[in-house]
Amino acid sequence: MITRASLEAADRADALAAVRERFMLPPGVVYLDGNSLGPLPRATPERIVTVMRDEWGGGLIRSWNDAGWMEAPARIGDKIARLIGAVPGSVVVADSTSVNLFKLLSAALALRPDRRKIVSEAGNFPTDLYIAEGLTDQLGRGHRLVRAAPEAIAEAIDDDTAVVMITHVNYHTGAMHDMAALTAAAHAKGALMLWDLAHSAGAMPLDLAGCGADFAVGCGYKFLNGGPGAPAFLHVAPRWQEAARYGLTGWLGHAAPFAFEPSYRGAGGMARALVGTPPMLAMAALEVGVEQALAVPLDQVRAKSLHQTALLMDLIDQECAGLDLRIVTPRQAARRGSQVSVAHTDAYAVMQALIARGVIGDFRAPDILRFGITPLYLRDVDLWDAVAVLREVLAGETWRDPRHAVRRAVT
Amino acid sequence: MITRASLEAADRADALAAVRERFMLPPGVVYLDGNSLGPLPRATPERIVTVMRDEWGGGLIRSWNDAGWMEAPARIGDKIARLIGAVPGSVVVADSTSVNLFKLLSAALALRPDRRKIVSEAGNFPTDLYIAEGLTDQLGRGHRLVRAAPEAIAEAIDDDTAVVMITHVNYHTGAMHDMAALTAAAHAKGALMLWDLAHSAGAMPLDLAGCGADFAVGCGYKFLNGGPGAPAFLHVAPRWQEAARYGLTGWLGHAAPFAFEPSYRGAGGMARALVGTPPMLAMAALEVGVEQALAVPLDQVRAKSLHQTALLMDLIDQECAGLDLRIVTPRQAARRGSQVSVAHTDAYAVMQALIARGVIGDFRAPDILRFGITPLYLRDVDLWDAVAVLREVLAGETWRDPRHAVRRAVT
Repeated sequence: MITRASLEAADRADALAAVRERFMLPPGVVYLDGNSLGPLPRATPERIVTVMRDEWGGGLIRSWNDAGWMEAPARIGDKIARLIGAVPGSVVVADSTSVNLFKLLSAALALRPDRRKIVSEAGNFPTDLYIAEGLTDQLGRGHRLVRAAPEAIAEAIDDDTAVVMITHVNYHTGAMHDMAALTAAAHAKGALMLWDLAHSAGAMPLDLAGCGADFAVGCGYKFLNGGPGAPAFLHVAPRWQEAARYGLTGWLGHAAPFAFEPSYRGAGGMARALVGTPPMLAMAALEVGVEQALAVPLDQVRAKSLHQTALLMDLIDQECAGLDLRIVTPRQAARRGSQVSVAHTDAYAVMQALIARGVIGDFRAPDILRFGITPLYLRDVDLWDAVAVLREVLAGETWRDPRHAVRRAVT
Repeated sequence: MITRASLEAADRADALAAVRERFMLPPGVVYLDGNSLGPLPRATPERIVTVMRDEWGGGLIRSWNDAGWMEAPARIGDKIARLIGAVPGSVVVADSTSVNLFKLLSAALALRPDRRKIVSEAGNFPTDLYIAEGLTDQLGRGHRLVRAAPEAIAEAIDDDTAVVMITHVNYHTGAMHDMAALTAAAHAKGALMLWDLAHSAGAMPLDLAGCGADFAVGCGYKFLNGGPGAPAFLHVAPRWQEAARYGLTGWLGHAAPFAFEPSYRGAGGMARALVGTPPMLAMAALEVGVEQALAVPLDQVRAKSLHQTALLMDLIDQECAGLDLRIVTPRQAARRGSQVSVAHTDAYAVMQALIARGVIGDFRAPDILRFGITPLYLRDVDLWDAVAVLREVLAGETWRDPRHAVRRAVT
């Protein structure tokens, strides 16, 4: 039997307890949506004010040189590389996750010109699937997107597969793939492996280089706490950087952007994957967020994450039995990411009722209550309090209040 | 004979004089590079701090609904539409200029499937040409980019031309095209017209709708003062919005992004041109910048711009005769944008010497000193002072100081 008092004791013993002070968290809120939008690091506003007043306002155009703006995509990329097990010089920050997926799928298809399949997971985050559809439509050369069930991905890879594009942790279920095994399965058939790390980067140790992954993308505004719509990142293994062609050939990816040459000549290394001018306010906020993640060993983060996802599931079992919840996220530690997804037939209204009571998670269609676990600032008692509210909402059926049924753009 | 005293008098009579107070301009600087990076509006820092502390920090994920974040691309787009003569609902803010060029060229080629030419200006800003090259390479269907001299564009348009892509004001020379005439020339051959407004939006009245233009892109960080690397915008005439396919089919362009449907189904209207999650700090800064532009009638801006570009050329004639300068920008008012470009064989070192003395313009390879005219905050005396420094640098040959020859990433 878990008690709130036992969790208070656990929080006092938590080696990461002090890290919570690095974030601004509004009072009265249990924030279980850091996997959708990470909270504001306390260091961010001061840094952004400096970028605005001193670098933009005072330095003006000179800050592209003097304030390190030109180097920011590679500099922040190298910091992210340390979080995802990639070698220096193999990651840059640029554009959105979606645009980066387009670049890397373009590169992958060009590197495997005789193959026609993109294999992905049927339940992958939609933008991954949409981008693949848009690219294959645009190319008009008979490529097709194969959508496999999560357990059937490996067998879907064949000699006609150019690239396997998988999100490491599924946004919907929280199930995590075996990165090494699936990368090996792709390579065994001569296919390239593209990982989407949206729900992994900053949440757990990763070893892209060790797995031999070819490509990766990831999101800046979830576990990296880079702010709403923060720029994304992309990784290309060094062995592909020379041959890669990304389709999007913008001036910042040119070998000599300020020579204003009449024809495109791709830069060496990851600089070729840059397209337009980077948004510096957003880049600076991302850099602060990444620095928070770098301040804590990722194995400690992962250990606390596994503890807390297990705790949340145990608390739901203990406190919400008979209230029509079904835990979707795998119970096996090695099979889950850093979230707990729970099905309920009226999940939309239930989540609205939770949010109205300060417990902020996500609804994911059609029936998922999604609770993100972010060890840098979550306490065990927060999970107790969240489940207490969940029980109250379900047992009291307060979610039937018609106000909670009103659909909004984002939940 | 122009005197500094006469210019002081002119500044006192300037109807736009008070607008300068809306911007933070560092002391001791004459800023003639607002066409590369517009300066910091005084209102921006407070607005961004509110977005950070209240919307991101306090509202967290809820701000996508509650703080109007979801509507920002269309809301700011509609504000920009007023600056460029486009109808409401025909502009959104998204991505970079380069990425938006890719979307619109993709759409144009798909709308003219039997045609194989993209006509552009040989001296267009490189990213426009590079993006066209990358797209045609990727498609691999025999499209080609035709590079015409500025005066030969109309005659280069033929029955095989799918789209004409021209930057309204040339970044290098400052020469301005006749938007109505060139659009009509494209349409006369059944081609589509795509305008790049990087050096026009916010600098002069524009009438995209009146000209019948099909597509446009533009930059947020030049005359719109949206901050370094601010998001860009794109315009699609309503008649093409239903048929347009942009190649980049991200989740935010889906008809129901939060339904997480397995296949892409493009949204109606301009929402389809969105791809990934918008960077809200950068979007908010752009919105403040756009509001500065909206506060002043564009015909007044254009009148002062033409006065100041003429004044700068006259001052160079008067003060720098015999100092090996050659004015490149057209003297004819209707033929020039809002900059003055001046050739000098050692332009790089000359510009470095100017910058060291607080006169900030741009070098553009191989030999151009580029001076941007931004009527919202430039005074006539600023131009006098800038030319005085230019004369001093040239007459004293101080630019021969070896420090000024050291190349840097951005000038």
